[in-house]
Amino acid sequence: MNDLSHDRSKGCVHLIGAGPGAADLLTLRALRLIQSADVVVHDRLVSPEIMSLVPESCRRLDVGKTSGFHAVPQEQINAILVDLAQQGLRVARLKGGDPLIFGRGSEEAEACRIAGVPFDYTPGITSAQGAASSTGVPLTHRGLASGLRYVTGHRARDAELDLDWASLASTDTTLVVYMGVANIAEIARQLMAHGLPADLPVLAVASATTPREMRVLSTLATIAADTSDARPEAPVLFIIGHVVSLYRPEAVAQTGQGIMVHA
Amino acid sequence: MNDLSHDRSKGCVHLIGAGPGAADLLTLRALRLIQSADVVVHDRLVSPEIMSLVPESCRRLDVGKTSGFHAVPQEQINAILVDLAQQGLRVARLKGGDPLIFGRGSEEAEACRIAGVPFDYTPGITSAQGAASSTGVPLTHRGLASGLRYVTGHRARDAELDLDWASLASTDTTLVVYMGVANIAEIARQLMAHGLPADLPVLAVASATTPREMRVLSTLATIAADTSDARPEAPVLFIIGHVVSLYRPEAVAQTGQGIMVHA
Repeated sequence: MNDLSHDRSKGCVHLIGAGPGAADLLTLRALRLIQSADVVVHDRLVSPEIMSLVPESCRRLDVGKTSGFHAVPQEQINAILVDLAQQGLRVARLKGGDPLIFGRGSEEAEACRIAGVPFDYTPGITSAQGAASSTGVPLTHRGLASGLRYVTGHRARDAELDLDWASLASTDTTLVVYMGVANIAEIARQLMAHGLPADLPVLAVASATTPREMRVLSTLATIAADTSDARPEAPVLFIIGHVVSLYRPEAVAQTGQGIMVHA
Repeated sequence: MNDLSHDRSKGCVHLIGAGPGAADLLTLRALRLIQSADVVVHDRLVSPEIMSLVPESCRRLDVGKTSGFHAVPQEQINAILVDLAQQGLRVARLKGGDPLIFGRGSEEAEACRIAGVPFDYTPGITSAQGAASSTGVPLTHRGLASGLRYVTGHRARDAELDLDWASLASTDTTLVVYMGVANIAEIARQLMAHGLPADLPVLAVASATTPREMRVLSTLATIAADTSDARPEAPVLFIIGHVVSLYRPEAVAQTGQGIMVHA
Protein backbone atom coordinates (compact mmCIF):
# COMPACT_ATOMS: atom_id res chain seq x y z
CA MET A 1 0.00 0.00 0.00
CA ASN A 2 1.58 3.26 -1.05
CA ASP A 3 0.31 6.80 -0.92
CA LEU A 4 0.46 8.80 -4.14
CA SER A 5 0.00 12.10 -2.37
CA HIS A 6 3.35 11.73 -0.59
CA ASP A 7 5.40 10.30 -3.46
CA ARG A 8 6.48 13.26 -5.53
CA SER A 9 9.65 11.61 -6.76
CA LYS A 10 7.73 9.41 -9.12
CA GLY A 11 5.05 9.90 -11.73
CA CYS A 12 1.61 8.44 -11.32
CA VAL A 13 -1.76 8.20 -13.04
CA HIS A 14 -5.01 9.33 -11.43
CA LEU A 15 -7.99 7.82 -13.29
CA ILE A 16 -10.67 10.41 -12.58
CA GLY A 17 -14.38 10.56 -13.26
CA ALA A 18 -15.29 14.02 -14.57
CA GLY A 19 -19.00 13.46 -13.94
CA PRO A 20 -21.85 14.25 -16.33
CA GLY A 21 -20.82 17.73 -17.40
CA ALA A 22 -21.66 20.49 -14.91
CA ALA A 23 -18.51 21.88 -13.32
CA ASP A 24 -19.97 21.78 -9.81
CA LEU A 25 -20.88 18.10 -10.10
CA LEU A 26 -17.19 17.27 -9.93
CA THR A 27 -16.11 15.77 -6.60
CA LEU A 28 -13.84 17.70 -4.26
CA ARG A 29 -11.16 15.01 -4.74
CA ALA A 30 -11.29 15.23 -8.53
CA LEU A 31 -10.89 19.00 -8.41
CA ARG A 32 -7.89 18.73 -6.09
CA LEU A 33 -6.20 16.14 -8.32
CA ILE A 34 -6.82 18.16 -11.49
CA GLN A 35 -5.43 21.29 -9.89
CA SER A 36 -2.24 19.54 -8.78
CA ALA A 37 -1.61 17.59 -12.00
CA ASP A 38 1.28 18.18 -14.40
CA VAL A 39 -0.74 16.99 -17.38
CA VAL A 40 -4.45 16.33 -18.02
CA VAL A 41 -5.29 13.62 -20.55
CA HIS A 42 -8.94 13.96 -21.59
CA ASP A 43 -11.38 12.90 -24.25
CA ARG A 44 -14.41 14.23 -25.99
CA LEU A 45 -16.90 13.33 -23.27
CA VAL A 46 -15.29 15.70 -20.78
CA SER A 47 -17.33 18.92 -20.96
CA PRO A 48 -15.84 22.36 -21.65
CA GLU A 49 -17.17 23.39 -18.21
CA ILE A 50 -14.95 20.77 -16.57
CA MET A 51 -11.95 21.59 -18.77
CA SER A 52 -12.23 25.23 -17.68
CA LEU A 53 -11.19 24.07 -14.18
CA VAL A 54 -7.78 22.89 -15.44
CA PRO A 55 -5.12 25.45 -14.48
CA GLU A 56 -3.60 27.44 -17.36
CA SER A 57 -0.16 26.14 -16.45
CA CYS A 58 -1.20 22.52 -16.83
CA ARG A 59 -0.44 20.66 -20.05
CA ARG A 60 -3.49 19.21 -21.83
CA LEU A 61 -3.59 16.19 -24.10
CA ASP A 62 -6.75 15.42 -26.07
CA VAL A 63 -7.13 11.74 -26.93
CA GLY A 64 -10.78 12.22 -27.89
CA LYS A 65 -12.58 9.29 -29.31
CA THR A 66 -15.36 10.21 -31.71
CA SER A 67 -17.51 7.30 -32.80
CA GLY A 68 -16.90 6.61 -36.48
CA PHE A 69 -13.64 8.54 -36.64
CA HIS A 70 -10.22 7.07 -36.11
CA ALA A 71 -9.12 8.74 -32.91
CA VAL A 72 -6.32 7.56 -30.66
CA PRO A 73 -6.74 3.78 -30.20
CA GLN A 74 -7.08 2.49 -26.64
CA GLU A 75 -3.71 0.73 -26.69
CA GLN A 76 -2.03 3.98 -27.65
CA ILE A 77 -3.81 5.88 -24.85
CA ASN A 78 -2.57 3.24 -22.41
CA ALA A 79 0.99 3.71 -23.70
CA ILE A 80 0.74 7.53 -23.50
CA LEU A 81 -0.38 7.39 -19.84
CA VAL A 82 2.44 5.03 -18.88
CA ASP A 83 5.00 7.09 -20.79
CA LEU A 84 3.97 10.39 -19.16
CA ALA A 85 4.07 8.85 -15.68
CA GLN A 86 7.48 7.32 -16.36
CA GLN A 87 8.70 10.84 -17.19
CA GLY A 88 7.90 11.61 -13.54
CA LEU A 89 4.70 13.51 -14.27
CA ARG A 90 1.51 13.48 -12.22
CA VAL A 91 -1.08 12.52 -14.81
CA ALA A 92 -4.78 13.32 -14.36
CA ARG A 93 -6.64 11.02 -16.75
CA LEU A 94 -10.08 12.66 -17.03
CA LYS A 95 -13.00 10.61 -18.26
CA GLY A 96 -16.62 11.65 -18.74
CA GLY A 97 -18.86 10.10 -16.08
CA ASP A 98 -17.17 7.38 -14.02
CA PRO A 99 -13.95 5.63 -15.06
CA LEU A 100 -15.28 2.21 -14.03
CA ILE A 101 -18.67 2.37 -15.78
CA PHE A 102 -18.24 2.02 -19.56
CA GLY A 103 -15.06 4.06 -19.17
CA ARG A 104 -12.35 1.47 -19.89
CA GLY A 105 -10.55 2.85 -16.85
CA SER A 106 -9.64 -0.64 -15.75
CA GLU A 107 -7.84 -1.27 -19.05
CA GLU A 108 -5.71 1.82 -18.51
CA ALA A 109 -5.11 0.76 -14.91
CA GLU A 110 -3.99 -2.68 -16.08
CA ALA A 111 -1.41 -1.08 -18.39
CA CYS A 112 -0.14 0.99 -15.44
CA ARG A 113 0.02 -2.07 -13.19
CA ILE A 114 2.05 -4.05 -15.74
CA ALA A 115 4.45 -1.12 -16.19
CA GLY A 116 4.82 -0.59 -12.44
CA VAL A 117 3.23 2.87 -12.59
CA PRO A 118 1.25 3.84 -9.45
CA PHE A 119 -2.40 4.61 -10.16
CA ASP A 120 -5.67 5.16 -8.36
CA TYR A 121 -9.31 5.81 -9.16
CA THR A 122 -11.60 8.71 -8.30
CA PRO A 123 -15.26 8.02 -9.05
CA GLY A 124 -17.50 10.47 -10.91
CA ILE A 125 -21.25 10.99 -11.12
CA THR A 126 -22.29 8.77 -14.00
CA SER A 127 -24.47 10.34 -16.72
CA ALA A 128 -27.57 8.40 -15.70
CA GLN A 129 -27.46 10.02 -12.27
CA GLY A 130 -26.82 13.44 -13.77
CA ALA A 131 -29.78 13.05 -16.10
CA ALA A 132 -31.98 11.77 -13.27
CA SER A 133 -31.19 14.70 -10.99
CA SER A 134 -31.65 17.38 -13.63
CA THR A 135 -34.87 15.94 -15.09
CA GLY A 136 -36.32 14.74 -11.79
CA VAL A 137 -36.85 11.20 -13.10
CA PRO A 138 -35.84 8.76 -10.35
CA LEU A 139 -33.86 5.66 -11.29
CA THR A 140 -35.68 3.58 -8.69
CA HIS A 141 -39.07 4.33 -7.12
CA ARG A 142 -41.32 2.15 -4.96
CA GLY A 143 -43.97 0.51 -7.09
CA LEU A 144 -42.40 1.59 -10.41
CA ALA A 145 -38.84 0.22 -10.42
CA SER A 146 -37.17 -1.92 -7.78
CA GLY A 147 -33.85 -2.06 -9.61
CA LEU A 148 -31.69 -0.37 -12.20
CA ARG A 149 -29.69 -1.56 -15.15
CA TYR A 150 -27.05 0.11 -17.36
CA VAL A 151 -26.17 -1.25 -20.80
CA THR A 152 -24.33 0.18 -23.75
CA GLY A 153 -26.03 0.49 -27.12
CA HIS A 154 -22.74 0.88 -28.92
CA ARG A 155 -21.48 -1.90 -31.14
CA ALA A 156 -18.21 -2.53 -32.86
CA ARG A 157 -18.26 -1.84 -36.62
CA ASP A 158 -20.30 -4.46 -38.49
CA ALA A 159 -20.99 -6.43 -35.29
CA GLU A 160 -24.45 -7.30 -34.03
CA LEU A 161 -25.78 -5.68 -30.88
CA ASP A 162 -25.02 -8.41 -28.37
CA LEU A 163 -27.64 -7.85 -25.69
CA ASP A 164 -29.76 -10.34 -23.75
CA TRP A 165 -33.10 -8.92 -24.89
CA ALA A 166 -35.33 -11.33 -22.96
CA SER A 167 -33.63 -10.39 -19.71
CA LEU A 168 -33.64 -6.66 -20.55
CA ALA A 169 -37.38 -6.63 -21.26
CA SER A 170 -38.44 -6.19 -17.63
CA THR A 171 -41.00 -3.57 -16.63
CA ASP A 172 -39.86 -3.70 -12.99
CA THR A 173 -36.31 -2.47 -13.72
CA THR A 174 -35.27 0.93 -15.06
CA LEU A 175 -33.11 0.41 -18.13
CA VAL A 176 -30.56 3.08 -19.02
CA VAL A 177 -28.88 2.81 -22.41
CA TYR A 178 -25.56 4.61 -22.79
CA MET A 179 -24.13 5.38 -26.24
CA GLY A 180 -27.29 4.20 -27.94
CA VAL A 181 -28.19 6.96 -30.40
CA ALA A 182 -27.02 5.11 -33.51
CA ASN A 183 -28.90 1.95 -32.58
CA ILE A 184 -31.97 3.15 -30.69
CA ALA A 185 -34.33 1.96 -33.45
CA GLU A 186 -33.10 -1.62 -33.17
CA ILE A 187 -32.98 -1.45 -29.37
CA ALA A 188 -36.59 -0.26 -29.14
CA ARG A 189 -37.75 -2.84 -31.72
CA GLN A 190 -36.07 -5.70 -29.87
CA LEU A 191 -37.41 -4.63 -26.48
CA MET A 192 -40.95 -4.51 -27.90
CA ALA A 193 -40.45 -7.87 -29.64
CA HIS A 194 -39.48 -9.31 -26.27
CA GLY A 195 -42.56 -8.07 -24.49
CA LEU A 196 -42.13 -4.45 -23.40
CA PRO A 197 -45.24 -2.36 -24.17
CA ALA A 198 -45.05 0.04 -27.12
CA ASP A 199 -46.29 2.89 -24.91
CA LEU A 200 -43.61 2.40 -22.24
CA PRO A 201 -42.22 5.88 -21.63
CA VAL A 202 -38.66 6.75 -22.68
CA LEU A 203 -36.70 9.91 -21.93
CA ALA A 204 -33.63 10.70 -24.03
CA VAL A 205 -31.27 13.18 -22.38
CA ALA A 206 -28.37 14.78 -24.22
CA SER A 207 -25.51 16.68 -22.53
CA ALA A 208 -27.18 16.21 -19.16
CA THR A 209 -26.55 18.88 -16.49
CA THR A 210 -24.91 21.33 -18.93
CA PRO A 211 -26.47 24.46 -20.50
CA ARG A 212 -26.77 22.35 -23.70
CA GLU A 213 -28.99 19.78 -22.02
CA MET A 214 -31.77 18.58 -24.31
CA ARG A 215 -34.55 16.13 -23.53
CA VAL A 216 -36.85 14.11 -25.74
CA LEU A 217 -39.88 12.56 -24.04
CA SER A 218 -41.28 9.69 -26.03
CA THR A 219 -42.30 6.02 -25.94
CA LEU A 220 -40.66 2.82 -27.10
CA ALA A 221 -42.75 2.94 -30.29
CA THR A 222 -41.73 6.48 -31.21
CA ILE A 223 -38.35 7.15 -29.62
CA ALA A 224 -36.32 6.33 -32.74
CA ALA A 225 -38.24 8.78 -34.93
CA ASP A 226 -38.39 11.44 -32.21
CA THR A 227 -34.66 11.20 -31.54
CA SER A 228 -33.90 11.37 -35.22
CA ASP A 229 -35.99 14.57 -35.50
CA ALA A 230 -34.38 16.22 -32.47
CA ARG A 231 -30.78 15.44 -33.52
CA PRO A 232 -29.35 15.57 -30.00
CA GLU A 233 -25.62 16.06 -29.64
CA ALA A 234 -23.61 13.33 -27.89
CA PRO A 235 -23.44 12.20 -25.17
CA VAL A 236 -27.04 10.96 -25.16
CA LEU A 237 -28.61 8.41 -22.92
CA PHE A 238 -32.03 6.81 -22.83
CA ILE A 239 -33.98 6.19 -19.63
CA ILE A 240 -36.55 3.47 -20.35
CA GLY A 241 -39.24 2.47 -17.87
CA HIS A 242 -42.25 3.40 -15.79
CA VAL A 243 -40.18 5.85 -13.71
CA VAL A 244 -40.28 8.18 -16.73
CA SER A 245 -44.01 8.67 -16.02
CA LEU A 246 -42.85 10.80 -13.07
CA TYR A 247 -41.20 13.32 -15.45
CA ARG A 248 -42.54 16.73 -14.45
CA PRO A 249 -39.98 19.26 -15.66
CA GLU A 250 -41.93 22.19 -14.29
CA ALA A 251 -41.73 20.77 -10.77
CA VAL A 252 -37.96 20.57 -10.47
CA ALA A 253 -36.31 23.86 -9.66
CA GLN A 254 -33.26 24.47 -11.83
CA THR A 255 -30.21 25.62 -9.95
CA GLY A 256 -28.81 28.06 -12.42
CA GLN A 257 -28.73 25.92 -15.56
CA GLY A 258 -30.35 27.07 -18.75
CA ILE A 259 -32.20 23.95 -19.78
CA MET A 260 -33.82 23.66 -23.20
CA VAL A 261 -36.76 21.32 -22.89
CA HIS A 262 -37.53 19.61 -26.17
CA ALA A 263 -40.70 17.66 -25.46
CA MET B 1 -38.64 27.49 -14.06
CA ASN B 2 -37.44 29.17 -10.92
CA ASP B 3 -34.01 29.46 -9.41
CA LEU B 4 -33.65 28.41 -5.80
CA SER B 5 -30.34 30.16 -5.39
CA HIS B 6 -31.94 33.59 -5.82
CA ASP B 7 -35.14 33.01 -3.88
CA ARG B 8 -34.31 33.67 -0.26
CA SER B 9 -37.78 34.83 0.68
CA LYS B 10 -39.10 31.32 0.59
CA GLY B 11 -38.00 28.00 2.02
CA CYS B 12 -36.97 25.12 -0.18
CA VAL B 13 -35.70 21.55 -0.04
CA HIS B 14 -32.46 20.43 -1.66
CA LEU B 15 -32.41 16.63 -1.98
CA ILE B 16 -28.69 15.93 -1.90
CA GLY B 17 -26.60 12.82 -2.45
CA ALA B 18 -23.89 12.66 0.21
CA GLY B 19 -21.93 10.04 -1.73
CA PRO B 20 -20.42 6.83 -0.34
CA GLY B 21 -18.74 8.26 2.76
CA ALA B 22 -15.40 9.98 2.14
CA ALA B 23 -15.74 13.72 2.68
CA ASP B 24 -13.87 14.56 -0.53
CA LEU B 25 -16.17 12.41 -2.66
CA LEU B 26 -18.90 14.98 -2.11
CA THR B 27 -19.63 17.13 -5.17
CA LEU B 28 -18.80 20.82 -5.18
CA ARG B 29 -22.52 21.60 -5.50
CA ALA B 30 -23.45 19.45 -2.51
CA LEU B 31 -20.84 21.15 -0.34
CA ARG B 32 -22.07 24.62 -1.36
CA LEU B 33 -25.70 23.71 -0.57
CA ILE B 34 -24.80 22.17 2.81
CA GLN B 35 -22.79 25.21 3.77
CA SER B 36 -25.62 27.61 2.93
CA ALA B 37 -28.44 25.59 4.49
CA ASP B 38 -30.44 26.60 7.55
CA VAL B 39 -31.07 23.01 8.55
CA VAL B 40 -29.59 19.64 7.53
CA VAL B 41 -31.90 16.64 7.69
CA HIS B 42 -29.84 13.44 7.54
CA ASP B 43 -30.01 9.75 8.23
CA ARG B 44 -27.78 6.95 9.39
CA LEU B 45 -26.15 6.32 6.00
CA VAL B 46 -24.55 9.76 5.92
CA SER B 47 -21.02 9.27 7.25
CA PRO B 48 -19.52 11.22 10.18
CA GLU B 49 -16.90 12.52 7.68
CA ILE B 50 -19.67 14.18 5.65
CA MET B 51 -21.49 15.48 8.72
CA SER B 52 -18.27 17.18 9.85
CA LEU B 53 -18.66 19.50 6.84
CA VAL B 54 -21.93 20.91 8.19
CA PRO B 55 -21.29 24.34 9.73
CA GLU B 56 -21.58 24.54 13.52
CA SER B 57 -24.27 27.19 13.16
CA CYS B 58 -26.50 24.93 11.09
CA ARG B 59 -29.33 23.05 12.76
CA ARG B 60 -29.19 19.24 12.36
CA LEU B 61 -32.08 16.83 12.40
CA ASP B 62 -31.40 13.10 12.50
CA VAL B 63 -34.20 11.03 10.97
CA GLY B 64 -32.00 7.93 10.85
CA LYS B 65 -33.62 4.74 9.78
CA THR B 66 -32.03 1.67 11.35
CA SER B 67 -33.28 -1.59 9.89
CA GLY B 68 -35.31 -3.41 12.55
CA PHE B 69 -35.81 -0.35 14.74
CA HIS B 70 -38.75 2.00 14.59
CA ALA B 71 -37.13 5.16 13.29
CA VAL B 72 -38.97 8.07 11.73
CA PRO B 73 -41.41 6.66 9.13
CA GLN B 74 -41.07 7.94 5.55
CA GLU B 75 -44.38 9.82 5.66
CA GLN B 76 -43.24 11.69 8.75
CA ILE B 77 -39.90 12.59 7.11
CA ASN B 78 -41.85 13.96 4.14
CA ALA B 79 -43.97 16.05 6.50
CA ILE B 80 -40.92 17.33 8.39
CA LEU B 81 -39.23 18.49 5.18
CA VAL B 82 -42.35 20.32 3.99
CA ASP B 83 -42.90 21.89 7.40
CA LEU B 84 -39.33 23.19 7.67
CA ALA B 85 -39.46 24.66 4.17
CA GLN B 86 -42.80 26.30 4.90
CA GLN B 87 -41.15 28.00 7.88
CA GLY B 88 -38.98 29.72 5.26
CA LEU B 89 -35.89 27.57 5.89
CA ARG B 90 -33.41 26.33 3.31
CA VAL B 91 -33.41 22.59 3.96
CA ALA B 92 -30.52 20.37 2.92
CA ARG B 93 -31.88 16.83 2.90
CA LEU B 94 -28.73 14.67 2.95
CA LYS B 95 -28.92 11.07 1.85
CA GLY B 96 -26.16 8.48 1.67
CA GLY B 97 -25.18 7.74 -1.94
CA ASP B 98 -27.58 9.21 -4.51
CA PRO B 99 -31.11 10.41 -3.70
CA LEU B 100 -32.56 8.78 -6.83
CA ILE B 101 -31.00 5.31 -6.45
CA PHE B 102 -32.69 3.39 -3.59
CA GLY B 103 -32.90 6.72 -1.77
CA ARG B 104 -36.64 7.42 -1.83
CA GLY B 105 -35.73 10.97 -2.82
CA SER B 106 -38.54 11.03 -5.35
CA GLU B 107 -41.08 10.29 -2.62
CA GLU B 108 -39.86 13.28 -0.62
CA ALA B 109 -39.89 15.37 -3.79
CA GLU B 110 -43.48 14.35 -4.48
CA ALA B 111 -44.49 15.53 -1.01
CA CYS B 112 -42.79 18.87 -1.72
CA ARG B 113 -44.48 19.16 -5.12
CA ILE B 114 -47.93 18.57 -3.64
CA ALA B 115 -47.28 21.13 -0.90
CA GLY B 116 -45.94 23.71 -3.38
CA VAL B 117 -42.47 23.67 -1.82
CA PRO B 118 -39.61 24.28 -4.29
CA PHE B 119 -37.13 21.42 -4.45
CA ASP B 120 -34.23 20.18 -6.53
CA TYR B 121 -31.86 17.24 -6.67
CA THR B 122 -28.09 17.03 -6.42
CA PRO B 123 -26.67 13.64 -7.37
CA GLY B 124 -24.10 11.79 -5.27
CA ILE B 125 -21.59 9.04 -5.98
CA THR B 126 -23.53 5.86 -5.32
CA SER B 127 -21.92 3.27 -3.03
CA ALA B 128 -21.24 0.83 -5.87
CA GLN B 129 -19.02 3.41 -7.56
CA GLY B 130 -17.31 4.28 -4.30
CA ALA B 131 -16.58 0.60 -3.66
CA ALA B 132 -15.37 0.09 -7.23
CA SER B 133 -12.95 3.00 -7.08
CA SER B 134 -11.49 2.12 -3.69
CA THR B 135 -11.12 -1.61 -4.37
CA GLY B 136 -10.15 -1.27 -8.04
CA VAL B 137 -12.89 -3.65 -9.18
CA PRO B 138 -14.47 -2.21 -12.34
CA LEU B 139 -18.23 -2.35 -12.75
CA THR B 140 -17.90 -3.01 -16.48
CA HIS B 141 -14.87 -4.42 -18.29
CA ARG B 142 -14.50 -5.66 -21.87
CA GLY B 143 -14.85 -9.41 -21.98
CA LEU B 144 -15.98 -9.71 -18.35
CA ALA B 145 -19.10 -7.53 -18.00
CA SER B 146 -20.86 -5.57 -20.70
CA GLY B 147 -23.48 -4.15 -18.35
CA LEU B 148 -24.29 -3.39 -14.75
CA ARG B 149 -27.27 -3.98 -12.52
CA TYR B 150 -28.25 -2.66 -9.10
CA VAL B 151 -30.85 -4.40 -6.94
CA THR B 152 -31.78 -4.17 -3.30
CA GLY B 153 -31.58 -7.22 -1.07
CA HIS B 154 -33.78 -5.63 1.56
CA ARG B 155 -37.29 -6.90 2.12
CA ALA B 156 -40.19 -5.64 4.12
CA ARG B 157 -40.80 -7.56 7.35
CA ASP B 158 -42.15 -11.09 6.69
CA ALA B 159 -42.24 -10.50 2.93
CA GLU B 160 -40.46 -12.69 0.39
CA LEU B 161 -37.51 -11.33 -1.56
CA ASP B 162 -39.21 -10.35 -4.78
CA LEU B 163 -36.43 -10.59 -7.36
CA ASP B 164 -36.46 -11.98 -10.89
CA TRP B 165 -33.78 -14.62 -10.25
CA ALA B 166 -33.69 -16.05 -13.77
CA SER B 167 -32.97 -12.62 -15.20
CA LEU B 168 -30.44 -11.78 -12.47
CA ALA B 169 -28.44 -14.96 -13.07
CA SER B 170 -26.38 -13.55 -15.94
CA THR B 171 -22.61 -13.98 -16.03
CA ASP B 172 -22.24 -11.11 -18.53
CA THR B 173 -23.63 -8.43 -16.19
CA THR B 174 -22.11 -7.22 -12.94
CA LEU B 175 -24.71 -7.51 -10.20
CA VAL B 176 -24.49 -5.15 -7.23
CA VAL B 177 -26.73 -5.90 -4.26
CA TYR B 178 -27.44 -2.99 -1.93
CA MET B 179 -28.77 -3.57 1.61
CA GLY B 180 -28.34 -7.31 1.27
CA VAL B 181 -26.51 -8.39 4.43
CA ALA B 182 -29.53 -9.90 6.13
CA ASN B 183 -30.52 -11.92 3.06
CA ILE B 184 -27.23 -12.73 1.34
CA ALA B 185 -27.58 -16.47 2.07
CA GLU B 186 -30.91 -16.64 0.23
CA ILE B 187 -29.67 -14.37 -2.57
CA ALA B 188 -26.59 -16.53 -3.20
CA ARG B 189 -28.62 -19.75 -3.01
CA GLN B 190 -31.19 -18.47 -5.52
CA LEU B 191 -28.55 -17.20 -7.95
CA MET B 192 -26.82 -20.61 -7.90
CA ALA B 193 -30.16 -22.40 -8.27
CA HIS B 194 -30.78 -20.28 -11.38
CA GLY B 195 -27.49 -21.18 -13.00
CA LEU B 196 -24.70 -18.95 -11.68
CA PRO B 197 -21.54 -20.97 -10.86
CA ALA B 198 -20.76 -21.61 -7.19
CA ASP B 199 -17.23 -20.30 -7.66
CA LEU B 200 -18.35 -16.96 -9.17
CA PRO B 201 -16.36 -14.34 -7.24
CA VAL B 202 -18.13 -11.96 -4.86
CA LEU B 203 -16.69 -8.97 -3.06
CA ALA B 204 -18.54 -7.57 -0.05
CA VAL B 205 -17.56 -3.99 0.78
CA ALA B 206 -18.63 -2.26 3.99
CA SER B 207 -18.38 1.49 4.66
CA ALA B 208 -16.68 1.95 1.27
CA THR B 209 -14.24 4.89 0.93
CA THR B 210 -14.14 5.60 4.69
CA PRO B 211 -11.37 4.67 7.17
CA ARG B 212 -13.75 1.91 8.34
CA GLU B 213 -13.86 0.27 4.92
CA MET B 214 -13.83 -3.52 5.15
CA ARG B 215 -13.79 -6.04 2.34
CA VAL B 216 -14.63 -9.72 2.18
CA LEU B 217 -13.49 -11.56 -0.93
CA SER B 218 -15.42 -14.76 -1.44
CA THR B 219 -17.55 -16.76 -3.89
CA LEU B 220 -21.28 -17.33 -4.27
CA ALA B 221 -20.92 -20.64 -2.41
CA THR B 222 -19.16 -19.15 0.59
CA ILE B 223 -20.16 -15.47 0.79
CA ALA B 224 -22.93 -16.01 3.37
CA ALA B 225 -20.64 -17.80 5.83
CA ASP B 226 -17.73 -15.43 5.19
CA THR B 227 -19.90 -12.35 5.70
CA SER B 228 -21.35 -13.80 8.86
CA ASP B 229 -17.82 -14.38 10.21
CA ALA B 230 -16.60 -10.90 9.31
CA ARG B 231 -19.63 -9.06 10.79
CA PRO B 232 -19.25 -5.96 8.59
CA GLU B 233 -20.97 -2.81 9.72
CA ALA B 234 -23.66 -1.28 7.48
CA PRO B 235 -23.75 -0.04 4.81
CA VAL B 236 -22.57 -3.15 2.99
CA LEU B 237 -22.85 -3.99 -0.66
CA PHE B 238 -22.02 -7.06 -2.66
CA ILE B 239 -20.35 -6.95 -6.08
CA ILE B 240 -21.09 -10.24 -7.84
CA GLY B 241 -19.51 -11.23 -11.15
CA HIS B 242 -16.40 -11.99 -13.15
CA VAL B 243 -15.13 -8.40 -12.73
CA VAL B 244 -14.27 -9.33 -9.14
CA SER B 245 -11.50 -11.55 -10.56
CA LEU B 246 -9.67 -8.26 -11.28
CA TYR B 247 -9.50 -7.48 -7.54
CA ARG B 248 -5.86 -6.74 -6.79
CA PRO B 249 -5.84 -4.59 -3.66
CA GLU B 250 -2.06 -4.26 -3.65
CA ALA B 251 -2.14 -2.64 -7.11
CA VAL B 252 -4.41 0.29 -6.28
CA ALA B 253 -2.66 3.13 -4.52
CA GLN B 254 -4.61 4.37 -1.52
CA THR B 255 -4.92 8.12 -1.36
CA GLY B 256 -4.73 8.65 2.34
CA GLN B 257 -7.40 6.24 3.55
CA GLY B 258 -6.59 3.64 6.15
CA ILE B 259 -8.16 0.58 4.58
CA MET B 260 -8.49 -2.65 6.53
CA VAL B 261 -8.43 -5.52 4.08
CA HIS B 262 -10.27 -8.56 5.39
CA ALA B 263 -9.68 -11.23 2.76
